[in-house]
Amino acid sequence: MLDNMFNKNKVDYELDKIGINNLRGLTIDMIQKANSGHPGICLGAAGIVYVLFKRHLILDLEDDKFLNRDRFILSAGHGAPLLYGLLYLMGSLTLNDLKKLRKINSKTPGHPEYLKTPFVEISTGPLGQGVGSSVGFSIAEAYLNKLTNGVIDHYTYVLCGDGELEEGITYEALSLAGTLNLNKLIVLYDSNNVTLDNKLEVTSHEDIVKRFESIGFLILEANDNPIEIDEALKKAKNSLKPSIILFKTTIGLYSKNAGTNLVHGKPLDEDDIFQIKEKLGLYNSAFNVNQDVLEDFRENIKTRFKEYKKVFNKNILKEKDNEIVKRLINSELTYNLNNLDINYNHKSLRDLSGEILNKIANDFPLLIGGSADLSSSCKTNLENIEIFSANNYLGRNIYFGIREHAMASILNGLALSGLRPFGSTFLTFSDYMKPSIRLTALMNLPVLYIFTHDSFTVGEDGPTHHPIEQLLSLELIPNLKVYRPYDLNELIGAYQEIFKQTNPSVLVLPRDNKDISEKTKIDCIKLGIYLVQDTKEEKYINLIANGEELGLALKVSDNLKSLGIFTKVYSAVCLKNADLKTINNLKKDLTIGITFGVPDYFYKITDKVIGLNEFSLSGSKEELLEYFGFIVEDIESKILEIINQENSY
Amino acid sequence: MLDNMFNKNKVDYELDKIGINNLRGLTIDMIQKANSGHPGICLGAAGIVYVLFKRHLILDLEDDKFLNRDRFILSAGHGAPLLYGLLYLMGSLTLNDLKKLRKINSKTPGHPEYLKTPFVEISTGPLGQGVGSSVGFSIAEAYLNKLTNGVIDHYTYVLCGDGELEEGITYEALSLAGTLNLNKLIVLYDSNNVTLDNKLEVTSHEDIVKRFESIGFLILEANDNPIEIDEALKKAKNSLKPSIILFKTTIGLYSKNAGTNLVHGKPLDEDDIFQIKEKLGLYNSAFNVNQDVLEDFRENIKTRFKEYKKVFNKNILKEKDNEIVKRLINSELTYNLNNLDINYNHKSLRDLSGEILNKIANDFPLLIGGSADLSSSCKTNLENIEIFSANNYLGRNIYFGIREHAMASILNGLALSGLRPFGSTFLTFSDYMKPSIRLTALMNLPVLYIFTHDSFTVGEDGPTHHPIEQLLSLELIPNLKVYRPYDLNELIGAYQEIFKQTNPSVLVLPRDNKDISEKTKIDCIKLGIYLVQDTKEEKYINLIANGEELGLALKVSDNLKSLGIFTKVYSAVCLKNADLKTINNLKKDLTIGITFGVPDYFYKITDKVIGLNEFSLSGSKEELLEYFGFIVEDIESKILEIINQENSY
Repeated sequence: MLDNMFNKNKVDYELDKIGINNLRGLTIDMIQKANSGHPGICLGAAGIVYVLFKRHLILDLEDDKFLNRDRFILSAGHGAPLLYGLLYLMGSLTLNDLKKLRKINSKTPGHPEYLKTPFVEISTGPLGQGVGSSVGFSIAEAYLNKLTNGVIDHYTYVLCGDGELEEGITYEALSLAGTLNLNKLIVLYDSNNVTLDNKLEVTSHEDIVKRFESIGFLILEANDNPIEIDEALKKAKNSLKPSIILFKTTIGLYSKNAGTNLVHGKPLDEDDIFQIKEKLGLYNSAFNVNQDVLEDFRENIKTRFKEYKKVFNKNILKEKDNEIVKRLINSELTYNLNNLDINYNHKSLRDLSGEILNKIANDFPLLIGGSADLSSSCKTNLENIEIFSANNYLGRNIYFGIREHAMASILNGLALSGLRPFGSTFLTFSDYMKPSIRLTALMNLPVLYIFTHDSFTVGEDGPTHHPIEQLLSLELIPNLKVYRPYDLNELIGAYQEIFKQTNPSVLVLPRDNKDISEKTKIDCIKLGIYLVQDTKEEKYINLIANGEELGLALKVSDNLKSLGIFTKVYSAVCLKNADLKTINNLKKDLTIGITFGVPDYFYKITDKVIGLNEFSLSGSKEELLEYFGFIVEDIESKILEIINQENSY
Repeated sequence: MLDNMFNKNKVDYELDKIGINNLRGLTIDMIQKANSGHPGICLGAAGIVYVLFKRHLILDLEDDKFLNRDRFILSAGHGAPLLYGLLYLMGSLTLNDLKKLRKINSKTPGHPEYLKTPFVEISTGPLGQGVGSSVGFSIAEAYLNKLTNGVIDHYTYVLCGDGELEEGITYEALSLAGTLNLNKLIVLYDSNNVTLDNKLEVTSHEDIVKRFESIGFLILEANDNPIEIDEALKKAKNSLKPSIILFKTTIGLYSKNAGTNLVHGKPLDEDDIFQIKEKLGLYNSAFNVNQDVLEDFRENIKTRFKEYKKVFNKNILKEKDNEIVKRLINSELTYNLNNLDINYNHKSLRDLSGEILNKIANDFPLLIGGSADLSSSCKTNLENIEIFSANNYLGRNIYFGIREHAMASILNGLALSGLRPFGSTFLTFSDYMKPSIRLTALMNLPVLYIFTHDSFTVGEDGPTHHPIEQLLSLELIPNLKVYRPYDLNELIGAYQEIFKQTNPSVLVLPRDNKDISEKTKIDCIKLGIYLVQDTKEEKYINLIANGEELGLALKVSDNLKSLGIFTKVYSAVCLKNADLKTINNLKKDLTIGITFGVPDYFYKITDKVIGLNEFSLSGSKEELLEYFGFIVEDIESKILEIINQENSY
């Protein structure tokens, strides 16, 4: 009996081997046709993904958004042709799609792009980002698993190479995965010991087994053949800890340059392709897949899913009144904040932000998030909600540790899983997260970043803690909406806008400003720039500012009146929301921007800006305001100077 | 005899204990006086640094720049009062300085700042940066050690806390330190198991011993008493591998909140200070140090250095003709490139850059650097020079691995050691390095970043590999000079400027542009913006661009002439070099900027910009140029449109 099974399996695996070689053939055909791409990983890692897809993944070939699908993340995004080849075998892409690899507006871009291709769960390419986000997918699964009484219970597989394990973000994220014991996370490590520039040993002598033991992973090893791959995947799925499988592969297998960096990132030459094709049993053919392979591959996935779906349908029925399930199925990611009752009570803006965030969290179970160890400073702790931990996957306070970069990539994974995540740190440390924030924006995900301590008014901590250029740096990222409210009104308005929409958003708050104004307006935030203080005089200048500086602008405006200079004061609470007409109107008048950061922040509107074009200093807020000329009298004289210059033009 | 020694030592260590408590007292006095700061680490880690300074560091109290001093890096920069307290004991700061902690323009800013305080080797504060740079200090030492026949042979000590070991940059950098076997690097790990938000166990279950075993470190453990601290330091100094000492400490020792996060980052209350002072034996006194302690501490450092100096003076004499030693002593960091003989020969700009870099390297031994695994793409490999490796510290090609962030922080350490370092990757991945680049700029270090693949003209790799906003993001950083040459002339000029000065610099290059022009000028780079193509007509418009776009602007200019529209074409090869007069002159005319990135890049000069305000796509360079309207005809019609709008104003 056992013998028979073994024989059956062996025969079966023989077909896998043909299929894997067919997949290899497809990838090099694609790359040759595109005359651009990375053959090394495609030839090396084909076996891993082929066996994973054929024998393990729960995927609905008819619905790439099936709620409980297993997630496969190609963190080594340059291996995109592998994924596209599999998608052809699955019937989700055509041969014609494959032939358009790396062509503009095709379904097969150079690196996988979210929403452009079925079953692409996330845009990848910048190394380490997929690994980081895979931890977010796993956290989401663990949370939703608890909330749905086990109905959501998928695995998250992430394929990465040597290079990615050198990136800091993967250490950060996987250390957290170990701490949280996310046992449905399975890292597929394509261990070929070669990076772009050289052999891995030139840059790393790491003992990978010890490294992953140190963070609580199960470590499995397998050679690159279907039987071992399959066995390792089975073991990983049964693991009570997160797992990593070290697949010993050969980069550019079968190429004359196999095992070297020469085969990493350029198309192969014709001779090489010819002899590889021969070895693959694909003599003289291109874009050709064995029909048995195709049917076997597709049938395996279909049959497995059909079986699975029966159970799932029964289970989900029990959860039909589960609000979370309904929201997930309908992608209901917005939340209406119209009836917010927040008492100002002389609290700082970040404290008030914490109160609003808490109110939302108490009523909106898709909200989940945390801080890179600054929740007590950024006021983002959810007070009545537990900590997400290995012992409590129902918690929604995620303690990311001092891992800003991993935090942002994890937020991406949470958002891609249908949740509405937030994360917080100081504005100056947004630098640590930039690569992941960029991906949030590129994928247009509903992630909310809360960055407090937003200028030198932080005070004593000094220039390393004082953002100068970060506000504009974030503003420059396409799709990302940066809100910088001045007081409670604008804060409420910003939160309303953020949760009314599903854009990537940044909320920027000062350390301790407690200003409140009767002139600011909750419902003007959507305008981006709006008039806070008007004048009826015919001759006037405009002042524009946001955040803490708006208070300064209002004071300056009052003082200038006594000198017979009249001003309109604008709040630039969200520059990206402003329309061209508003901006052009401001340009027609003399408009002066006031900002505690680089003056370039307002150059979109005016080149008359009172800003700070140098690194700041350590000192008290009051000392610094005076030193850098941000007290009312200094601003006034600078404005008078600008007015004089303009008149003398 | 042994007994006697032991007794003597014991007595001696008793004085250490008093000294350590005096240091603790100083730090809480400083923090109380400043009413701002971090008492937790100061109370917890005082013993480590006290014993290190008193019993181990080779420091010349009369010359904080002594060439071969041991380097102490307070990576946990929030522990600054500890360092300032030690500097008072050393006689390098006064009590008055200590009383000005965190006051503006004092010698005692909130976090250590390079050049503001004696013996502060590096600005720290953003977590992990000091650890990253410590690897740079160690690489520099290893290299200089070989070059000076062992005369340079100092240790690099870096103090860090739990939080820093969570940061990706420390994993990256220390993994490289292990690979390079930098055995004079000693990590002092203040292991108190508490972070700002919570207990460490909430965010990390790492087995630190295994973690450091996996990267080839010697791991030592010690409790927080002077005898054990001293013993551990002795062992670490004798290690043949890089080492880490796990000091088991208590955050906020003696405070009523000792061992909790409550004592991390706020001044203590009066009651607490009172009872702490009692425990420290400092009842009712402030800013008070026992005279025996002071003399003992200072004498120990002096005597040790005096002994050491005798040997050193003898050894350095042998190296008096060593060019490196002379350069190091005189801080000769500039290099004259006036006689560069580079043959254009239809090579791409990055290839030409590689040739220039190689010419410099062959003649200028302070130049050292490498790439985050993209030396073959960025063309930054030094061809006739060996790889820096555990077996060859004479190499100057550093293979950083895919560790962009660590690379940048290591470059900072190399520069702070008197070398002239460079590092390379793709421009889009400069995001990974931003926190360290900011510190390069804050400290004004002579680091050269070479970022290639500078726009969507990279082509098929797609939007994750196409920088859009990075060029301006870098430009916004104070002190940092960003050069974006168009052709060989401008490239040579840029290299000349960079090596004539010691500013932090960024050289931005395209993937494959091979343009060459007779109109560009080598010696105009220092102007920042200069006229490349003039017109004698009275009525004209200005076009401004840099890099690859300048070629487009020149073509457009020629075409427009046939329509009777005359143009002056400016190269903005280094915006930061441009003076206000040039910018203001451009503003007086109609000036149109052309950039492949966010239009904001040119808003400093004009709001008429033809740019790209969205993420790009995967496709060939030609497809993308056409799709995004960057072919000559499209640019022309956009310019005509702008001219029409202007006229109708």
